[in-house]
Amino acid sequence: MQRYFLTTPLAAAELILPVEMYKHAITVLRMKIGTTFEVVTPDEVIHCMKLVAIKNKQAIAVEVKNYKNNVELPVDATIICGLPKGDKADFIVQKGTELGAKHFIFFESDYSIAKWDKKKVAKKLTRLSKIAQGAAEQSHRLVIPTVEYLEDLAQLIVPNATTCITAYEEEAKKGEASKFSKLVTNLKSKDKENIFAVFGPEGGISKQEIKILVDKGFIAVGLGPRIMRAETAPLYFLAALSFGLELA
Amino acid sequence: MQRYFLTTPLAAAELILPVEMYKHAITVLRMKIGTTFEVVTPDEVIHCMKLVAIKNKQAIAVEVKNYKNNVELPVDATIICGLPKGDKADFIVQKGTELGAKHFIFFESDYSIAKWDKKKVAKKLTRLSKIAQGAAEQSHRLVIPTVEYLEDLAQLIVPNATTCITAYEEEAKKGEASKFSKLVTNLKSKDKENIFAVFGPEGGISKQEIKILVDKGFIAVGLGPRIMRAETAPLYFLAALSFGLELA
Repeated sequence: MQRYFLTTPLAAAELILPVEMYKHAITVLRMKIGTTFEVVTPDEVIHCMKLVAIKNKQAIAVEVKNYKNNVELPVDATIICGLPKGDKADFIVQKGTELGAKHFIFFESDYSIAKWDKKKVAKKLTRLSKIAQGAAEQSHRLVIPTVEYLEDLAQLIVPNATTCITAYEEEAKKGEASKFSKLVTNLKSKDKENIFAVFGPEGGISKQEIKILVDKGFIAVGLGPRIMRAETAPLYFLAALSFGLELA
Repeated sequence: MQRYFLTTPLAAAELILPVEMYKHAITVLRMKIGTTFEVVTPDEVIHCMKLVAIKNKQAIAVEVKNYKNNVELPVDATIICGLPKGDKADFIVQKGTELGAKHFIFFESDYSIAKWDKKKVAKKLTRLSKIAQGAAEQSHRLVIPTVEYLEDLAQLIVPNATTCITAYEEEAKKGEASKFSKLVTNLKSKDKENIFAVFGPEGGISKQEIKILVDKGFIAVGLGPRIMRAETAPLYFLAALSFGLELA
């Protein structure tokens, strides 16, 4: 069933569809009177709605029932990526949202070939936030992940009591294979932990960046013996997190 | 370091670069005399080679050293997908190769919107095999995954003593969350097991297809509470397999 996010609580018994929702539901999907769809409110309640009127470019829906269904990862996962090439940021946000990430941060990294023109950062973030919203609707998430930009990794602020990792090829090459798994096992016993994970762009993470991260409490881990592209590693991380925490 | 596959053993001390390797190494990458690169032979040995001569559209390299480094998943994983839309098959083969799959099979599924023109199947498989080769070189695999096509799921032949799963949304909806994890734990204790995993296209797997699969010994499992797109579920499966078998 089609799902939309509302940024405000359902104030009344009737919902007048906001502009974007109207455009998608009525103009694109051509929903008719009687069609049901879901809206998720900021309290993570899912409201099953039924269209009851469409006229004068306005559509009205009423609530049929509401329910809770927690499909969020048991930890808040933040994916932090060195700016990747081409449309890879779009890809990371779309697939990362499907796989349960809560926040995305892109940063200008030492080995980034891509650079974001400072004047265009706001526009790029708006675009990525829309991709996150679309993917969150499609994958029936309860929250829309946030997307941020950091000019410099040194500015990264990590809250206390957080598990912080960085996928470091040098660790994988050394055959390091158990740190990440142990960290996930450790997360299991905690309630609503945060986990921050930093990934390099195509050229990887520089030694200088590893130093900054280690100083901030990040642990360099290997993510298996194969070399993954920049945009694949965050997906591996999220899938492994889900497997370790949700399916065990 | 750049890596290539050779379909034959290194016959002599000198290697005359085959046409495709020449094109990529000399024409595209503009390697010079003295540049080193790796070739993997069918016995999964990695040969470190050094370019010693380039003339008359021929390039010659000699072996500097050779070594073994097993980066293959400890199980042979076969990814079987209902034909997805657009370029999603390319995506599944590229990312699935990075994540360690050994074989890919695409089939005409009940809910596939995409159809492959019978006359074009051979061409499409050649194209996908090239994508698998490129991804295998890039991710430093030791084998190039195979890509096949099945007109009908009923024709699928599964060898004996194989773990067979299918990602079924209805299982996930019921909250089923432990079957896949238990199967992976069970795989750990076995040597060189095969695992076959079937994924639906955008519309999912039909009840009729589930019946065919169950009759063949497939187990319907949930892959977590979020709805994943057709092309994301196989990546989740492979990452989870790696995490469960390689990092535990």
